Amino acid sequence: MKPQNPFATSLRTHTLGSLTELDSGTMVEVCGWVHKRRDHGGLIFIDLRDKFGITQIVFDPGVDATSHTAAERLRSEYCVHVTGKVRPRGPGLENPKLKTGKIEIECHSLTLISASETPPFQIAEEETVGEDLALTYRYLDLRKPKLAQKIALRNALAWEVRSYFHARAFEEIETPILTKSTPEGSRDYIVPSRIYPGNFYALPQSPQLYKQLCMIAGFDRYFQIARCFRDEDLRADRQPEFTQIDVEMSFVDESDIEDVACGLMVHLCKRFLNYDMDLPARHMSYGTAMEKYGSDRPDLRFDLSFTRIDSLARRTEFAPFQKGVVKCFVVPAHVEFSRSEIDGCADFVRVFGLEGVAWTRVTTEGLTGGIAKFFPPEMHAELIETVNAKAGDVILYGAGKEQVVNQSLDHLRRHIGAAKKLYSENDLAFVWITGFPLLELDPETGGFASVHHPFTSPLYEDLELLEIDPLKVRARAYDLVLNGIELGGGSIRIHDNAMQQKIFNLLGLTPEIAARKFGFFLRALKYGTPIHGGFAFGLDRIAMLLTKSASIREVIPFPKTAKAADLMLDAPSHVDEKQLKELSLRLEKGLHNFGNVG
Amino acid sequence: MKPQNPFATSLRTHTLGSLTELDSGTMVEVCGWVHKRRDHGGLIFIDLRDKFGITQIVFDPGVDATSHTAAERLRSEYCVHVTGKVRPRGPGLENPKLKTGKIEIECHSLTLISASETPPFQIAEEETVGEDLALTYRYLDLRKPKLAQKIALRNALAWEVRSYFHARAFEEIETPILTKSTPEGSRDYIVPSRIYPGNFYALPQSPQLYKQLCMIAGFDRYFQIARCFRDEDLRADRQPEFTQIDVEMSFVDESDIEDVACGLMVHLCKRFLNYDMDLPARHMSYGTAMEKYGSDRPDLRFDLSFTRIDSLARRTEFAPFQKGVVKCFVVPAHVEFSRSEIDGCADFVRVFGLEGVAWTRVTTEGLTGGIAKFFPPEMHAELIETVNAKAGDVILYGAGKEQVVNQSLDHLRRHIGAAKKLYSENDLAFVWITGFPLLELDPETGGFASVHHPFTSPLYEDLELLEIDPLKVRARAYDLVLNGIELGGGSIRIHDNAMQQKIFNLLGLTPEIAARKFGFFLRALKYGTPIHGGFAFGLDRIAMLLTKSASIREVIPFPKTAKAADLMLDAPSHVDEKQLKELSLRLEKGLHNFGNVG
Repeated sequence: MKPQNPFATSLRTHTLGSLTELDSGTMVEVCGWVHKRRDHGGLIFIDLRDKFGITQIVFDPGVDATSHTAAERLRSEYCVHVTGKVRPRGPGLENPKLKTGKIEIECHSLTLISASETPPFQIAEEETVGEDLALTYRYLDLRKPKLAQKIALRNALAWEVRSYFHARAFEEIETPILTKSTPEGSRDYIVPSRIYPGNFYALPQSPQLYKQLCMIAGFDRYFQIARCFRDEDLRADRQPEFTQIDVEMSFVDESDIEDVACGLMVHLCKRFLNYDMDLPARHMSYGTAMEKYGSDRPDLRFDLSFTRIDSLARRTEFAPFQKGVVKCFVVPAHVEFSRSEIDGCADFVRVFGLEGVAWTRVTTEGLTGGIAKFFPPEMHAELIETVNAKAGDVILYGAGKEQVVNQSLDHLRRHIGAAKKLYSENDLAFVWITGFPLLELDPETGGFASVHHPFTSPLYEDLELLEIDPLKVRARAYDLVLNGIELGGGSIRIHDNAMQQKIFNLLGLTPEIAARKFGFFLRALKYGTPIHGGFAFGLDRIAMLLTKSASIREVIPFPKTAKAADLMLDAPSHVDEKQLKELSLRLEKGLHNFGNVG
Repeated sequence: MKPQNPFATSLRTHTLGSLTELDSGTMVEVCGWVHKRRDHGGLIFIDLRDKFGITQIVFDPGVDATSHTAAERLRSEYCVHVTGKVRPRGPGLENPKLKTGKIEIECHSLTLISASETPPFQIAEEETVGEDLALTYRYLDLRKPKLAQKIALRNALAWEVRSYFHARAFEEIETPILTKSTPEGSRDYIVPSRIYPGNFYALPQSPQLYKQLCMIAGFDRYFQIARCFRDEDLRADRQPEFTQIDVEMSFVDESDIEDVACGLMVHLCKRFLNYDMDLPARHMSYGTAMEKYGSDRPDLRFDLSFTRIDSLARRTEFAPFQKGVVKCFVVPAHVEFSRSEIDGCADFVRVFGLEGVAWTRVTTEGLTGGIAKFFPPEMHAELIETVNAKAGDVILYGAGKEQVVNQSLDHLRRHIGAAKKLYSENDLAFVWITGFPLLELDPETGGFASVHHPFTSPLYEDLELLEIDPLKVRARAYDLVLNGIELGGGSIRIHDNAMQQKIFNLLGLTPEIAARKFGFFLRALKYGTPIHGGFAFGLDRIAMLLTKSASIREVIPFPKTAKAADLMLDAPSHVDEKQLKELSLRLEKGLHNFGNVG
C-alpha cells in the first residue's frame, strides 16, 4: 500500500491519531507502541500509541485466532505492526477523551517489530519519576505525550521564529562553533587543537562578534538560531549549551530594533497563545524600574510599586530609618493581607539580606500597628498621601543599603503577588527597559565592568561624562522583560575604532591585552563600519514560558543535568591516553583512573 | 522618515538596489559604502553600494557646496549616509548594467558614518587575492558582491530545506553539541570538563545516534540542519566543522527514504536551477557501478562505460593481460581522441597506481595500432562486438589489481569526459546507488570494518551469510550521487539489540568495549525500537554545486583554512595557565611558549 496521507509509508497507511467513523470498513495498516492492554473475556484490547495519537485495536479470536494468541504476549511498549479493519465501537463503548474514540481497528494480522523489557517507569500513566532516572532514560521519558508535546512546541517555535525573520529578509547565517574566546565574561569551553599543539579553540558564549563582523561584511540583516556555550557553575535553570535567537541589523537605531524584537513577540503570542500583544510595548527606564520595583526586570502584571521616603523616614523616631534608603509599598485592603502574613515577611526577606520588614496599617484615623508609634502624629496623613494609601491598606517598609532594600522588596513584592494571586496565569505584561548604565563597578577588582558587554555604544548625549563620571554614562541598550523574566536584550553597538579602544581602556584592558584578545575586531572596525545593533532572546526560555514549564530541561530534547552531565550517554567520559597524546595534553597526576560520571 | 519599504529604517528610506525612474523627484535617505568615486570637472560621482545593489550619487557644488567639499575626501569603503533627490540620468549617461542605472541621487546632505583605511585588496574590482589574505580579512572579502551572493544562496538553500521538511511534518530537533564520542571513525574533537576532572565531552561527528534515539523516543520524523565536527588531516575541500542535512524516519523502508531524499533534490533543483529533475531517479547497484564505472559514485553525464574482458584478454599475447583484471572502454570516433591524447593517458593514470594504458584503434578491417599486434586476427571482430565499438573509435585498456584498475580507469574516464566536453556544464545526472556491501576488510587491522557505519542494517535475504561469508552481506544502504559527486547517503538501521551486538562483535568490539562505548545505545534498543532509517546530505557540498564554486570555502560564511585555522580570529590560540589548571590539564613540556597560529 502506498501513501494516502502525508504520513503514510510502506509500513503504514494511517497514523494513530487520524482515523474516524468516516474510515469505517477501511482496511488499514498501522504501527506503534502498546500503550495499555486489557483482557476482556475472549477479547483483547490494546491502546496503540504513536506520535500522533492513540487508537484502540481489538483482537478477536473469531476474526483472527493467530493474532489473538500473539496479542496475549504483548506488554507495555512493545512496538508492533497491525493490519485490520476500522469499525465503529459498540454502543456505550466510545471514548470521548480520544480523537479516535469512536472507532477501533479489528486486527486481522499482527507483526511484532520489537519487544520491550519492562520500562523503568510507566509511560502510559505519565508517572512522575526522579529526574536522574528520567534523564538516563530520556528516550522513554520523551514517549510521554505531555513531554513530547512540549518538545514539539519548541520545534514549532523555532520554525515560527525562522518564518518571521525570513519574511523580513533577514538571512540566517551560520557562524562557527570552533572559534576564539568571546567576551561575555563567563568561562569558555575550550577545544584542544591537534594540528597546533598547545593551542585551543573556544566554543562561543554567543555569536556576538561574528554578528558584528557580518554587519561589517555588509550582510545588512542577520539572524541565527544559535547554539551558545558557557562553562558556569550551573544554577538550577541553566544549561552548559543553550539556544539563542540572535539578531543584528545595519543602519538602525533603537526604534528599529524594538520594532523587530517586539514584532517577533507579537507573532509568537498570536501563534502560540492566540494573544494579541499591544504595540508599542510599555517602556520604562532602568532608573524608574529600579526606583519603583527594585529590579531591572519588573513583573508588571500587578502594581505594589515602591515609594522612596528617605527624608520623611528620617523624621520618624524609628532607628533603622535614620540612615540608608527607605522604601515602602502599599498592599491594598482587598488583598486581605493577614497579620501572620505580615509577620512572615521578615523571615522571607532575610535570605535577601534585609534584617526585617516594618509595617503599618492604614485606618481612617491614620497609621496603626507595627511601627506606627514611631511616626509623629502630624506625619500620618503626609505619609498616607505620599504613598497614596487608603483605609484598610497595609504599608510595608524596608530600610538599609539601596541594593539590599531593592533586592529584598523586589522578592517580597513578587512573593506577595504570586501568593495572593494578584494576576491571572494568562496575563502577559511586557516592558521594554532602556537607559541602562554603560558601566558598573566590579566588586572583585574595584574597576569598571560592562553592564551589557564592551561593544555596547554609550548614549551620545552622555559622551562627555565618559571622561568625568563614567558610572553616570547611559548605554544604548535595552531589554525586553515579560512577567518579571528577561526574554533578552541587546544594544546599538560601537562602530568606531577609537571609541571601542576607549571603552576597552576604561575596562582596564591594556592596549596589549586588547590587541591580543580583540585585535582582529579592532582591525575590522577600521574599514567603514556601519551603524549597527541587535538583540538576542533565549529560545529555551521562551519555549519554557509558552509551555508553562517548571524547568528549562522540559523544553530541551536532550538536556544535561544541573551539573552538566548527560546521564543518558554517560558524558563527559574518559578518552584514550593515545588521544590525549595526540593533543599534547596530560592530565594532572592521579586523575586518570577516576570512574566515569554516570 | 519611517518605513516605506521593508528595508527602510530610521536611517534610510530605500536600499541601493531599489530606485527606478518612477522614484524621480523623490527625496530619499540611503546608506552604504563608497564602491567607486569619480571626479568629473565640477561634479563628483560615487557608486554607493549596499547588500542590495549600487546607486550613483552626484555631488554638485551648485546643489550643495558643503557635501561636494566633503565628498572630495571620500575614499573606497567609506561608509556614508546621503540625503538627496532621485533624478533621471542625463541622456547617454545611463548604465544598462545596473538595475538602478537609469537614475542617480543628487546629494543634498552627506554624513560620514565611518572612514576606511585603504583596504588590503580592492573590493569594487573583485580583485583575486591570495586565500590567506582573503581569509584574514574575510569581512572585506564578503563585501564583494559575487561572494556575498554565494553566501546568500547558501542561506536561501537552508531555508528551502527547512521549508521542504516542515511541509512534510518533519520536526527540526536540536541535538547536543557537547556529547560523547560518536562512531563515524574519524578523530573526535574533545572538550575537557571542569566539573568532572579527567573527563571529556566530544563534539559530534554527526547526530547519528541522537537521531536514532529520537526514533526510539517516538518522534517519527526528524530532521536537522546539523553542525558536525571531524578532526581530520584535512584535504583541500574539507572543513573541521561542516553542516549536514540530517534526516530520520520511523516505520519506513528504502523506498520511503528515497521518496523524501529525491523529493528534496527535485525541490532544490526547481527552486535554484529551474531544472525539472525526473523521478524516480536512475537506480544502479554498487556492483554495476563498480563494474561499469570503477566507482560507487559514477558520473553519468556521459557514457564511456567499462567492459571487463579478462578471459578474452588471456587469449592475447600481451603479457600484462595474462593475470589480474582487464577492463576497457571505448572512446567514440566523434570525440576525436588524438594520438598525443592517447599517449597522455599513461602518464595520467600513473598517479593512481596503474603502470600504463594500452590502446587500439578500430577500423572497418579490425583493430590497429597500440597493442593490436598482440591480438590474434580471429579475435578482432569478437572484441569489437563485445565492446560494441565502431570504425574510428579508440579502445583504452587497463590491467592489474581490480582496485587499481577501477580507480585508474575511473579517473581517466572522467578526465576524458571533462577534457573533451562530453557533457554540458548544466547537465545533472543523478543516480541512486544501492546494494553496498555491509563490511569490508580494514587494511590496517585485517579485521572487518563497516562500509557505512555499524548501525546499518544488513539486507534480510543476506542474513545467513553473516555467519558464513560476512563480506558478501549487502547493506540496506544507499547513496545519492550527482555528476560523480556523492551528495549524501544513508541506510535502514538495525532496530534489534541482538543484531546490533552481533555486528559489534563482527567488527571486533568485545562486549566490554561495546558496553563502554555504546552501552547506552544497546540499552535503548531494548524498549521497543521502531523500524527506522534515514539519510544525511552535505549542505556545504550542495551549496557548492548550486553556485558552481571551486571550493567549499566559498559557500561557508567564516571558513577555516585547509589546516583548520581561523585566520581572521587567529584561532586556535593560547589560553591562560589558570584556565588549564581549572581543567586539571597540563601541556606537554616545552609547548607553552609557542607563538600563535596566525
